[in-house]
Amino acid sequence: MSVTLPPLKYNADGLIPAIVQDAKTHRVLMMAWMNAAALGATLRTGCMNYWSRSRQKFWLKGETSGHTQRVVRWAADCDADTLLFEVEQTGCACHTGYESCFFQTFTPDGTPVEISETRVFDPEKTYGG
Amino acid sequence: MSVTLPPLKYNADGLIPAIVQDAKTHRVLMMAWMNAAALGATLRTGCMNYWSRSRQKFWLKGETSGHTQRVVRWAADCDADTLLFEVEQTGCACHTGYESCFFQTFTPDGTPVEISETRVFDPEKTYGG
Repeated sequence: MSVTLPPLKYNADGLIPAIVQDAKTHRVLMMAWMNAAALGATLRTGCMNYWSRSRQKFWLKGETSGHTQRVVRWAADCDADTLLFEVEQTGCACHTGYESCFFQTFTPDGTPVEISETRVFDPEKTYGG
Repeated sequence: MSVTLPPLKYNADGLIPAIVQDAKTHRVLMMAWMNAAALGATLRTGCMNYWSRSRQKFWLKGETSGHTQRVVRWAADCDADTLLFEVEQTGCACHTGYESCFFQTFTPDGTPVEISETRVFDPEKTYGG
């Protein structure tokens, strides 16, 4: 059985959130936003495309850094208003050089936990100073 | 080293998205929204609290179903506008009875994949008919 989901629900700006997870380790790497065109390009090419809210432009992940994300499988949630993509990540997901954007963790009560991982790349070298 | 994040960035409605992941299996269970009060209650009690956009009310996850979520650790992303919680899930996360809200998966090109898992509970029995 597969479920026929209702049409995807985009927000008032025409966007839907996309959670991105490493297909092998299941680490959550990032969350970004897609419009219908970015989702279409992602399904057509197999590489993650987003809509950048800060830059107000279409965004092929890795276009500058080379850190592309190949789609392995994806899911829509029960409300059809959030997407989850499992990907093969080249390099790392975060523009700060960490593997995941969620590198700063906290204890349940909100105390920051010391970061033990190291950056995968130097953002100044990748994006220019 | 721990990073001092900028203050959390809530959207124009005063909300921030919270991705929820099973702390043991790393399966992504759901995404919901928090306002500052819901985040405060979550950190204070150790159980996930949200703001329901559809019902416009504060929402202790599991208040009706008993399917509570205990916080193990959490993270904010590099932009401080998305949260990720790793939890111990009692029962299951989805109101449809599936373990995760992301039970309907698709191949990279968008073909629905047959659902092989079964529901953990019958939603009619839990929430009433």
